[in-house]
Amino acid sequence: MNILKLTRFVIYILFKINCYAKLQKMDKKLVTREEDYSKWYNELIVKAGLAENSAVRGCMIIKPYGYAIWEKMQSQLDKMFKESGHENAYFPLFVPKSLFEAEEKNAEGFAKECAIVTHYRLQNDPENKGKLRVDPNAKLEEELIIRPTSEAIIWSTYKNWIQSYRDLPILINQWANVVRWEMRTRLFLRTAEFLWQEGHTAHETKNEAIEETIMINNLYADFAENFMSMPVIKGVKSKNETFAGADKTYCIEALMQDGKALQAGTSHFLAQNFAKAFDVKFADRDGKLNYVWATSWGVSSRLMGALVMTHSDDRGLVLPPKLAPHQVIFVPIYKNEEQLKSISEVVKDLRYKLNEVGVSSKFDDRETKRPGEKFAQHEIQGVPVRITIGPKDLEKNSLEIFRRDTFEKQFIQINDSVEYVLQLLDQIQDNLFEKALSFRDENITEVDDFDDFKNILENKGGFISAHWDGTDETENKIKELTKATIRCIPEGVKSAGKCIFSGKPSEQRVLFAKAY
Amino acid sequence: MNILKLTRFVIYILFKINCYAKLQKMDKKLVTREEDYSKWYNELIVKAGLAENSAVRGCMIIKPYGYAIWEKMQSQLDKMFKESGHENAYFPLFVPKSLFEAEEKNAEGFAKECAIVTHYRLQNDPENKGKLRVDPNAKLEEELIIRPTSEAIIWSTYKNWIQSYRDLPILINQWANVVRWEMRTRLFLRTAEFLWQEGHTAHETKNEAIEETIMINNLYADFAENFMSMPVIKGVKSKNETFAGADKTYCIEALMQDGKALQAGTSHFLAQNFAKAFDVKFADRDGKLNYVWATSWGVSSRLMGALVMTHSDDRGLVLPPKLAPHQVIFVPIYKNEEQLKSISEVVKDLRYKLNEVGVSSKFDDRETKRPGEKFAQHEIQGVPVRITIGPKDLEKNSLEIFRRDTFEKQFIQINDSVEYVLQLLDQIQDNLFEKALSFRDENITEVDDFDDFKNILENKGGFISAHWDGTDETENKIKELTKATIRCIPEGVKSAGKCIFSGKPSEQRVLFAKAY
Repeated sequence: MNILKLTRFVIYILFKINCYAKLQKMDKKLVTREEDYSKWYNELIVKAGLAENSAVRGCMIIKPYGYAIWEKMQSQLDKMFKESGHENAYFPLFVPKSLFEAEEKNAEGFAKECAIVTHYRLQNDPENKGKLRVDPNAKLEEELIIRPTSEAIIWSTYKNWIQSYRDLPILINQWANVVRWEMRTRLFLRTAEFLWQEGHTAHETKNEAIEETIMINNLYADFAENFMSMPVIKGVKSKNETFAGADKTYCIEALMQDGKALQAGTSHFLAQNFAKAFDVKFADRDGKLNYVWATSWGVSSRLMGALVMTHSDDRGLVLPPKLAPHQVIFVPIYKNEEQLKSISEVVKDLRYKLNEVGVSSKFDDRETKRPGEKFAQHEIQGVPVRITIGPKDLEKNSLEIFRRDTFEKQFIQINDSVEYVLQLLDQIQDNLFEKALSFRDENITEVDDFDDFKNILENKGGFISAHWDGTDETENKIKELTKATIRCIPEGVKSAGKCIFSGKPSEQRVLFAKAY
Repeated sequence: MNILKLTRFVIYILFKINCYAKLQKMDKKLVTREEDYSKWYNELIVKAGLAENSAVRGCMIIKPYGYAIWEKMQSQLDKMFKESGHENAYFPLFVPKSLFEAEEKNAEGFAKECAIVTHYRLQNDPENKGKLRVDPNAKLEEELIIRPTSEAIIWSTYKNWIQSYRDLPILINQWANVVRWEMRTRLFLRTAEFLWQEGHTAHETKNEAIEETIMINNLYADFAENFMSMPVIKGVKSKNETFAGADKTYCIEALMQDGKALQAGTSHFLAQNFAKAFDVKFADRDGKLNYVWATSWGVSSRLMGALVMTHSDDRGLVLPPKLAPHQVIFVPIYKNEEQLKSISEVVKDLRYKLNEVGVSSKFDDRETKRPGEKFAQHEIQGVPVRITIGPKDLEKNSLEIFRRDTFEKQFIQINDSVEYVLQLLDQIQDNLFEKALSFRDENITEVDDFDDFKNILENKGGFISAHWDGTDETENKIKELTKATIRCIPEGVKSAGKCIFSGKPSEQRVLFAKAY
């Protein structure tokens, strides 16, 4: 064995070791959706820097990248609420127990998941130096419930604001944190504390309140489809699934990639239930005293989970451009300072032009990361468009444009790139919607037999469109046997048939699914 | 007495009754500042629709008009934070007791005003049908503190985020609600729950952390002076007044119209205190393990109170244009539909033009209110500019422009009005600042004798600039005797002297005042 062979062998071994080390380092790959959808989701949320679990049971930390997406959602929704005549306000975090229990159905619905403040002071623990304990002398006379929703505190306030029809309508929204003590939690989808908006409106007439409820449900659908690129089905909840304290709950339901449904937003017609509980009457146009009509409606940080599960793939997050914290990322490829300088000049100019036409972008010129590492990070974070520029591109006056949704790459002349990116972003936004829509539509199955029902549910998933006799009893039994619930009763599509379970007559098909 | 006389008499009486009734109705006048400053403040907050007390002890409701001002503040501050490299995130509302008590000084500072969650479920009260009670079986193993500030929960998180200097700096801000169980509360100034932002940054070096602390204090001063039109004095807190857990607290202090000071923002250099409490170390550039350096900083909805007390007058709120929900209000004066129609056309055109140059406006065409009532409402709500248009104005192609800060009115040609309003808004913004600045400067009194000190404090108020020996003891005694505290130690103005109380040597004058 000569020295040359030995050297080659050693080099080969070193190369292998090096490869392995790199592989280890680069191995930020996610488990695939097929392997374990639930694990894929959790890994993705953490690795994309969206959120993580905290030291507090069931509460999450929304990390900067995740919060930036939430801010985009907030700002768009806020604009839509304001354009439809709503104003923001802020009501207390706490609800005194006596107010909380005033509307009995609402109270009953939330009683089992309430965080309760009982004391207002800590003191030094005499038995543990340096530790604190609850001061037994600082017990509240009346316990305070941390709002799981704010109808009670808000309607106890509206009582003072409303005397006559001239004080109506009241159209208020609140951005807030709420707490529901859930036993099984998942990042974004179900957490003890979550962020949301809750609208609370007060009206003269039943019709006006119903119109508001429907208008908001349409607004939510508009937001979901045109900003989140997430198709939704609009409908009404069955009695079982109606909000505690409401007469009717409108909702938008989306379908996730694993075939489970997700309730993305709800809008409740509260009738006069809260007005009666809090004695809120107004003098109408004829001078008669009437109870006020109410609505409430909300979407939450749960939408973040819906966004992730609608579009993302095995390589990470896929974001619709309208909600991406930055829509375009520039990555320079260079070997020396001079090259970086020329590239930076081009990027600066392009970013300025993109900004002028409303496209947000970022220049990833970190020296601590290699291009490959940057690519991996931007992929997992779902940046819609990546533009790479190297010295050879500059010579040809071109650059490489990569789209995250289809992984396609194009070389484009620099002069044409702004126009190209603008169109590409629209294409991506639309493509994500179309893809999700096809998937959703392929996964709505009409079923007329209960064995088929169970079979489809187990082996295909998705929405099952089936006849139902309209009773709680049937709904509960189906849930017990299959874990499927009625996600919604689509409005305006009557067609007679027989209940899939009881065989009794049914007025229309409803949508069943397993749900988040 | 003939029938004519009798009729006249009756008409006269009816007229008087009517006047009285109207007067009663219109009497939304505030108590004056001179009569009762504190009452004036409370009445103003309520009558201007900014906020009101809630059913929950010490918690307020921020009403739409108040919340709209807070949103303006938020959006400007948020922009400034982001421009200086900070990102938003969200951490849990709850702090487990064991984390809360980890940094002992911080815990001690807040222990006496903590709302504490001890249970997580309600149940039907067997002794009171329809009522709920705390479920004794749902006691938490570890109590949860509602965050009075978030250092503890955030540093317990940063521990997992920081391994090496490459992970630093972390520059995060959070918009959130916090709870401090105050015994004596006042709308905006001191409430059990309040809204704020809290920045929490982590740094490699002591210097970098100190620079951040000072940069943010300057940012706060910039915001206060250029957006709130509120002059502030920058400085450092005495040891007594330093944030619990900090080594040094920078602050901005403002002076209210009644001669009391108000702490408007604080920025804390936390040294390595929280890093030590939560064992947050990083590998520095030489590979050595070091504790991380920290800062935290915040302003709160208390700024709303400061804004009110800096500019408002006996007729109501006075708002700097940069924070007014709408900067211009249009009021039509008309006798018939036709006149209203012509006026509306002019207003529509003007609003469009104003919007184009970034001026927000509103058209008050409510038919349920008379012009006089509208004027009163806009005055009490502090709309910076009111534009009135009647049919006679239209004939002359002019309109009446009223500025809220000086009550001056001008007739301006319609064609010149957009330009005029633009300049006027700048003038108002500047005028408010100048007025507040003159007042503040007139109310800083240099004093070298303790009797003078007490005299000035009682009869003039404001800031007293006096020498202090630097000891807690002297500071506490002065507070005990006069209720004045050291508001801040202005930086960079050394000049030797003798302590006003002890006669011991002092390095510089500090500012004393009674404070909110």
